[in-house]
Parts: sequence; structure tokens; C-alpha cells
Amino acid sequence: MRLAVLGAGAVGRSVAELAHEYGHEVTALADSTGAVVDPAGVDVERAFARKDEAGSVGSASVEDALAAEYDALVEATPTTLGDAQPGFGHVRAALEADRHVVLANKGPVAQRYDDLRALERESEGQVRFEATVGGAIPVLSTIEGRGAENVTAVRGVLNGTANFVLSRMAAEGLSYEHVLAEAQDLGVAEADPTFDVDGTDAALKCVILANVLKGGGHTLDDATVAGIRDLPTSALALAAEDGRTIRLVGEVDGGVRVGPRLVPEHGTLAVSGTRNIVQFETRRGGRLNLSGRGAGGPETASAVLADVNALDPQR
Amino acid sequence: MRLAVLGAGAVGRSVAELAHEYGHEVTALADSTGAVVDPAGVDVERAFARKDEAGSVGSASVEDALAAEYDALVEATPTTLGDAQPGFGHVRAALEADRHVVLANKGPVAQRYDDLRALERESEGQVRFEATVGGAIPVLSTIEGRGAENVTAVRGVLNGTANFVLSRMAAEGLSYEHVLAEAQDLGVAEADPTFDVDGTDAALKCVILANVLKGGGHTLDDATVAGIRDLPTSALALAAEDGRTIRLVGEVDGGVRVGPRLVPEHGTLAVSGTRNIVQFETRRGGRLNLSGRGAGGPETASAVLADVNALDPQR
Repeated sequence: MRLAVLGAGAVGRSVAELAHEYGHEVTALADSTGAVVDPAGVDVERAFARKDEAGSVGSASVEDALAAEYDALVEATPTTLGDAQPGFGHVRAALEADRHVVLANKGPVAQRYDDLRALERESEGQVRFEATVGGAIPVLSTIEGRGAENVTAVRGVLNGTANFVLSRMAAEGLSYEHVLAEAQDLGVAEADPTFDVDGTDAALKCVILANVLKGGGHTLDDATVAGIRDLPTSALALAAEDGRTIRLVGEVDGGVRVGPRLVPEHGTLAVSGTRNIVQFETRRGGRLNLSGRGAGGPETASAVLADVNALDPQR
Repeated sequence: MRLAVLGAGAVGRSVAELAHEYGHEVTALADSTGAVVDPAGVDVERAFARKDEAGSVGSASVEDALAAEYDALVEATPTTLGDAQPGFGHVRAALEADRHVVLANKGPVAQRYDDLRALERESEGQVRFEATVGGAIPVLSTIEGRGAENVTAVRGVLNGTANFVLSRMAAEGLSYEHVLAEAQDLGVAEADPTFDVDGTDAALKCVILANVLKGGGHTLDDATVAGIRDLPTSALALAAEDGRTIRLVGEVDGGVRVGPRLVPEHGTLAVSGTRNIVQFETRRGGRLNLSGRGAGGPETASAVLADVNALDPQR
């Protein structure tokens, strides 16, 4: 398939670099300041070399990229809250042109799910967004395969940065500030880690899960969210005395909640480091656990490209 | 869809009982001694009441069931080795009549995969067999979603009976014979547990995985298999001193191997009780773990019915 890739962060870059390996071709590629379009196939390596030297993949515009010839739009620009712009506008443009859309950007799926599905109903294109929840873990395709009506609840550890910080605080007895600085040095936490440590990122993923399970109707406003910023190291020490530890757990059942929770130290939810885990309660199949890499360029790109492969090529 | 269900053990029975809940209808149902056929829909409850009283679901034959009107055959008769008969014959009859086939019976998929795919190529019907590996865990659909070419190796704990025995031996310091008798009392182990404790059941599942990953070519003869029958309790005690335990692990990479392996006591592979776990190594997504209920009537039936829902209804 011909792909238009919007966003040249870790995920967009990996999608563009790996597309060929999965049997696809990039015909348009945009970053935040420019774009490159080539119906015969963008030279991805050269485009990123240009970006590294001159600051952008090319001199064309995002609008040029959206007007290019492609079968599926990969929306991998940064997640925004509120009305989820400009990501939502990109998705709208693609669906109105009867193209498929694969999202790594959580904004449109968490904040405007109903609008997204309404646009999809009017389009020949399909919308998929596996990469928005759990990185390389096939969370949404598992729900799709089993049927949303057979999944009664989901909980999980859905933010690798927060989990890294909690794992290190518990293992080393270090303070939140100390471990966060360490995580930033290691590249595990971003310079501005607000979305991760305040629980917003995990909450967006839970809102997406709620939308998929209930057929829409949820935004971040419906979630009860607490982060790990004010968690004292002493709380982790106290938990350890009782054979437990603390994880930032998201829960989707009647409502959507994210917050620090006590979990058994060697229990299923106590994944360590940047790993993620998702736990499904199913109607007939009992409890199902999926764990793996919840973030990272190639990992998340593997989910994007699995989505691309699942699209109807005959659109 | 209209289903012909062959086999009235725990899985076949659950499939027949739950079919309606998943939007399907049973038009034929067979056990080892008889069958019942009704184009308007078999009264499943009554059929099982007859079986409980008179020994069979009905006075028709398996041939009658195979000649009935149905869209998908659910093959849930007991797994046999060698040429995988009579299961393979049932599958052949259905595919030659251009019907879909969903298997819970491991025999045809492990022992005659190439024949099975050859029949499928000549048929309008599709073949699916999620329930043959890992019960309620979506093992094969995860491979399907990510692409077999992106899964480089699989290992896992794929037999709940053996895992229950090992878990109890380790936790209580009891002998193999003692724990096995206990498992039989609890209904966790069958009267003849040979397939489970000798590793045959886990090996069949690994052979199926190898066939899916490599596109065929494997049977049980290609697997190196050791069981847990001769494992002394002292081996588990020795492992525990080193922070480890023993699990019956199946591995699929270059070859297919099943045997007792040392694993970290609190590690991912050390699931307890009857739970199963499957660990994938993927090309771009890193390591992925799936755990859940690997056996049980309703659990395995949920995988069968997910397969039925994934079939093309327009066949």
C-alpha cells in the first residue's frame, strides 16, 4: 500500500523506515515544519538526512502531503487534548477523500471517538489505531478478535515511564525526583514528563479502551486520574513490608480510573521497568494477560504496520 | 452461522451450549455413538439430556451430521496421533463440500497440516484452529495479526495439568505420584494423564505453532519431547534454593522441543496452577507474553467461537 506518514518523531520515523520491509511504500512524509511528496516513492533515508541537516524532511507542506496519492494515512503527530487538532483535521481530510487511516496519535481516538466513527461511516476508508494503546502489545486486535461484548473489564499498566520510575524507587529506595532525573538522562522520560507522571497518557489509553468496549461516548473528562508525582518513597517501602508494591494502574469497567495502586510484589500487574501489561476479564475465557513493550519507535511502528496490513487493500 | 458440532466432550458441549449467545445455530451435533440433525436448529439442552440418560445425543450417525446443512464444521472429537483419524476424515468431508472448518482437535493440524492446507486450497471453505493452542489465549490470531514472518521464536507453558503438578510439587514438597492422584481427584488431570505428563499434548501444540510459523512441514516425529513423570521432588527443592523452579516448557525456533526447564521462580514463565503462558520473540516488537486459561470447556469454546466469527459469512 502507498502510505502518507504524518509525524517524524520516533514512531513516524520508524514507520517510514520499516514500511518497505512490510511490503508498503511511502509516497508522502511530513514533519512539523515541512513535507516531501513523491508518487514513485519517497527516498526515506534521504528525507531524514535532510531533516537532520536542514531541520525538515522537505519543502512541501502538510497540505501537499494530504493531497498526495496514497492508500492509507498514518497519523503519528504528537497527541493533543481538547479538540485533538491538528491530528483530527488530518484524519478528516483523509477519510473525506476515501482513504484509510491508521493512528498512533491518541488525541482523535480518545477525545473525538464519536466524530471519528461518524466520518468513517461516510467514507470508503477504514480507521485503525492499535498503536495508540500498549505499543507493540496487540491490545485492540485482541478485543476485536474476541468481540468487545465478551470483554467485561480491562486493567493494566499502560505507561512505561511511570512504571520505570516506580520500579526504580521501589528497588533502590530513591526519591521520585532523583529517579525521574535518571530516567531523563537515560531517555526513558521526556524533558517534559507531565503526561506520563500525571497519569494523562495512561488515562488517554483507558479512554480509548472504554470507547472501543462501549462503542464511544468517552473523553478524558470522564476519567478519574491521579499521577505519581507526590508519591513518597516511604509509601513504596511500606508496601514492600507487606509483600506488595505500587504501580500506576488504569482501570476500565463501569468507569475509567487511573491512579497508584497496591499490587502483589510478584503479581502479574507488577511488571518492571518500561514494560506494559494489560489484563482482560472476559465473559467465557476467564482472565487474559498481555505484556510487552508499550513504547519505542520500532515497537510502536510494528503495531502501526500490523494495522496497515489488516486494512482492505481493495478500498 | 449454522454449525455442525462433532464431539460432545467438554469443548464440543460448551460450543453447542454457547453458540446461540455468539449469534450462531447448531444444526447438527454428534458424539462418539450417535448424532442429532435438525435444519431448524438442534435443541441442544434436550440433546444433552438424552445423552446423559441414554448415552448419546441422538440416533442419527456422524455421516448424517456431516451431510446436514451447515456453514461451519466444529471438529472437537478427541485428538488422535498417526494419521489423525477419524478427525481428519471429518475435516476432509466438510472442505470437499465447501464448508468452513474450525478445529479444537489438535490431530489434523499437528499431524497432517500440509494435507489440511491442500484441501483448503481446493475448497471454498476456510480452516481455523485457534482453540488447538492455549485454550482461551489468542495465540494463533496474534501470530496472524502480526504476520508469521515477524515472529522469530515461541516458547511457553502449554499444558495446564503438568503445570498444576509441578506447581504443587514445588509448593508442598510432595511427590509426583501424590500430586497426580490429587489432580485426578480434583478433575485437573484425566484418568489417563499420559498425553499431559509425557509432554505429548504440549508437543502437539508446539508442532502446530511450528507449522503456522514455517508454513507446514512438521509432525510430532520432528519434536524432541521429555515429560515430567520421572522428575524427583528433590530437583524442585534444589531449584528453589537457587531462586528458580521447574516448568514443562515448549520451544519453537529452529526446531521443536518440549521438556522440564529451570526458570526464575518469579519469572514470567513460572505461571502457577493450570494457567498457560506463551512468549513470542518478534522482529520489531520485542518480547510479547500472553497468559490465561489454557483449557476448560467454556474457555476453549470461546476460542472456537471467536474463530467462527472470523470466518467469511459469504462463503
